[in-house]
Amino acid sequence: MVQLRGSATGGSLDEIDAAVRMLLSLKLSYKTTTGQDYQAGLPPTDLALINNGTTKEEDEDFVDPWTVQTSNAKGVDYDKLIVRFGSTKIDTDLINRIERAIGQKPHRFLRRGIFFSHRDMDQILHAYENKKSFYLYTGRGPSSQAMHVGHLIPFIFTKWLQEVFDVPLVIQLTDDEKYLWKDLTTEKAYEYAKENAKDIIACGFDVNKTFIFSDLDYLGSSMGFYRNIVKVQKHVTFNQVKGIFGFTDSDCIGKISFPAIQAAPSFSSSFPQIFNGKENLQCLIPCAIDQDPYFRMTRDVAPRIGYPKPALLHSVFFPALQGAQTKMSASDPNSSIFLTDTPKQIKTKINKHAFSGGRDTIEEHRKYGGNCDVDVSFMYLTFFLEDDDRLEQLKQAYTSGELLTGELKKVLIETLQPMIAAHQERRKQVTDEVVKQFMTPRKLAFEF
Amino acid sequence: MVQLRGSATGGSLDEIDAAVRMLLSLKLSYKTTTGQDYQAGLPPTDLALINNGTTKEEDEDFVDPWTVQTSNAKGVDYDKLIVRFGSTKIDTDLINRIERAIGQKPHRFLRRGIFFSHRDMDQILHAYENKKSFYLYTGRGPSSQAMHVGHLIPFIFTKWLQEVFDVPLVIQLTDDEKYLWKDLTTEKAYEYAKENAKDIIACGFDVNKTFIFSDLDYLGSSMGFYRNIVKVQKHVTFNQVKGIFGFTDSDCIGKISFPAIQAAPSFSSSFPQIFNGKENLQCLIPCAIDQDPYFRMTRDVAPRIGYPKPALLHSVFFPALQGAQTKMSASDPNSSIFLTDTPKQIKTKINKHAFSGGRDTIEEHRKYGGNCDVDVSFMYLTFFLEDDDRLEQLKQAYTSGELLTGELKKVLIETLQPMIAAHQERRKQVTDEVVKQFMTPRKLAFEF
Repeated sequence: MVQLRGSATGGSLDEIDAAVRMLLSLKLSYKTTTGQDYQAGLPPTDLALINNGTTKEEDEDFVDPWTVQTSNAKGVDYDKLIVRFGSTKIDTDLINRIERAIGQKPHRFLRRGIFFSHRDMDQILHAYENKKSFYLYTGRGPSSQAMHVGHLIPFIFTKWLQEVFDVPLVIQLTDDEKYLWKDLTTEKAYEYAKENAKDIIACGFDVNKTFIFSDLDYLGSSMGFYRNIVKVQKHVTFNQVKGIFGFTDSDCIGKISFPAIQAAPSFSSSFPQIFNGKENLQCLIPCAIDQDPYFRMTRDVAPRIGYPKPALLHSVFFPALQGAQTKMSASDPNSSIFLTDTPKQIKTKINKHAFSGGRDTIEEHRKYGGNCDVDVSFMYLTFFLEDDDRLEQLKQAYTSGELLTGELKKVLIETLQPMIAAHQERRKQVTDEVVKQFMTPRKLAFEF
Repeated sequence: MVQLRGSATGGSLDEIDAAVRMLLSLKLSYKTTTGQDYQAGLPPTDLALINNGTTKEEDEDFVDPWTVQTSNAKGVDYDKLIVRFGSTKIDTDLINRIERAIGQKPHRFLRRGIFFSHRDMDQILHAYENKKSFYLYTGRGPSSQAMHVGHLIPFIFTKWLQEVFDVPLVIQLTDDEKYLWKDLTTEKAYEYAKENAKDIIACGFDVNKTFIFSDLDYLGSSMGFYRNIVKVQKHVTFNQVKGIFGFTDSDCIGKISFPAIQAAPSFSSSFPQIFNGKENLQCLIPCAIDQDPYFRMTRDVAPRIGYPKPALLHSVFFPALQGAQTKMSASDPNSSIFLTDTPKQIKTKINKHAFSGGRDTIEEHRKYGGNCDVDVSFMYLTFFLEDDDRLEQLKQAYTSGELLTGELKKVLIETLQPMIAAHQERRKQVTDEVVKQFMTPRKLAFEF
């Protein structure tokens, strides 16, 4: 139990408030002596705060840009997350509207709720329906050379968005972030950025419509980018980033100011070479929902610096092979399928490590059936198997017990092996020269 | 009185430490129940902290980059400041060593204690004596178009240093800082930077040896600068900048991370175009002592990121016309002599507003003499009258009562009028094209 007891004569209420906010930011919940939740501005005599020893939201999923934690084998409760983050569920109406707007079948990630939440996607569609342009922005933190299949999700989807909407795309590689957060040199972080760019390019982006940039590079080569960063930095306080990202006083000032760097590409004036200096182009950001805190902040700042709020499409998290409640780690090669894995490695990993929702014995499995909700092989198939009917068949057969775990795994292996091989083939074509083309600040094939 | 009482079972010691550090950062001093100053890691039972209601250093001068406060008409107590900041007094030995090294008479600012404090100037001289190069770095925050004579002090001295040591010079215009701290647009701050550059150039810097840069510009045009900024930002915590600069949780993240931007030019790799990528060139920073907090921080970080610590030469503050304990303000035209003042304005301002150390009546003045220690006209003459003998004569005559205030003021007027007129004449020659030359990232007339 922590008690904070204060009576103020020399010290001001503001000062006590600051100290209490500090304690509150530790995610311990405090009550006043009268049992109320602490609120700023209470008279001094009430300032005895008692923590009952539990942290807030102990039993809930935890999601921020660095940590995703859940104790549920089905993964994070996304409906709760939508409520907590204040975003909007992507419902059938919206998917139908997208289908009407683009005149083709929505991507399987939309059909299957993999991109499940949004902010202002209706505005983007409204703009598109009225022949007004927008642009796409996504990104990646290049923490290592090793990318796994889960890292491809935003890029696969973004490529599809680029194709169906025919709009410019900017991809941020936050090598500065990785330098700040990890035990890396700037040189190494920049090298990872360029290596990761190859895997991203191998997803099939159009070089005439796509600008990929490393922060370490682009910050030093664009007048527009830093100006927008400093504008965001002026309009966000430490209290705010503490609340949003959980930063503490012991964090370095680089981490504290970094959110502005991820925010700035949401504004078209960060790319004068692409948008001809145009400042008010709407931005659409496809990303995993753990990145939403950055863009909640961005959307809060945008109107105050005279820019439109970016719209967002949020994806679920890609589960680790060991199950949705465990953590994928680039340092554990068995936690996921990596883009460098051989067909044999893919087969072995899935057979050995993919968490199964099947029963302990064949007899039991035949009798009670498997559980697709926790079966990682089935989850992976929802990401990568294009054929809806086939997926539904597999689900029914597995649930009924007709299909065994080994058989389900075989389907996944046969889906991933050619997909990864094709990726590796395309990646081989991506020379340093091609990377340089994508990463050179330049006009794209759009007139503004 | 503020009491913070903590007993920890659920909460960790780390958490209590964090809260206490927070309170300590409010500049209230805390004692434990046993009367000791609070230290991290005390056992929980000792964590009752009592503030006696006074803030630390209540009666002392206050000096930070934004505020200089003293209640003494003689100005800040610089000897105390040297002790508090932990710098070293520039003594006769050092001045003599400079004279030997450069083979000429030291600048009047050195002879008269206007540059009075240093850090590692002996290392710079050692390097120079051993034919090793170094470079100069100084700067200015362009908060308005209006610069006064006091603003010239670091530039007059830096120009002299550049001439006698023949080394490269970089001058930072912190337009981003002014945007963050003031009610200015980025465009306006940048415009002020370019206007101020004209006054700086008019001091007579050599375009072949001087690079002037605006942060808003140069950050977007140099690969080296941002890399060094992010390196500094990784190695400084919010706790540190809170302690050094007094930032609070309500400050914007731009202010919090800005110190790294003022730090980075202390490292030669921030200017690859000048130093050919050379990373370990020693830097010497002439500045007013209120800027020292930035460079204390820089010197703390430097060895941790593999760079040499910058050396420093600190000047006293330039007094306002109304006296050394009042504040000069660009918005009060009568608080100083501005670089745009006409001969008539100079005359009127000095006669009307320059605080006099003379007596109330001529009779008393003749009898008791004037006080040079508080007389602003005399102070200004110590800055601008080159002739040591003449200055000494004036001092004696004024102190003895022989020289009247009006006569002393006349000497100052006759010193400043031609000086300002000559400055205005030189400034007229500084075209936008000349500014552009100085502000273009390029190689200077030095081989590295």
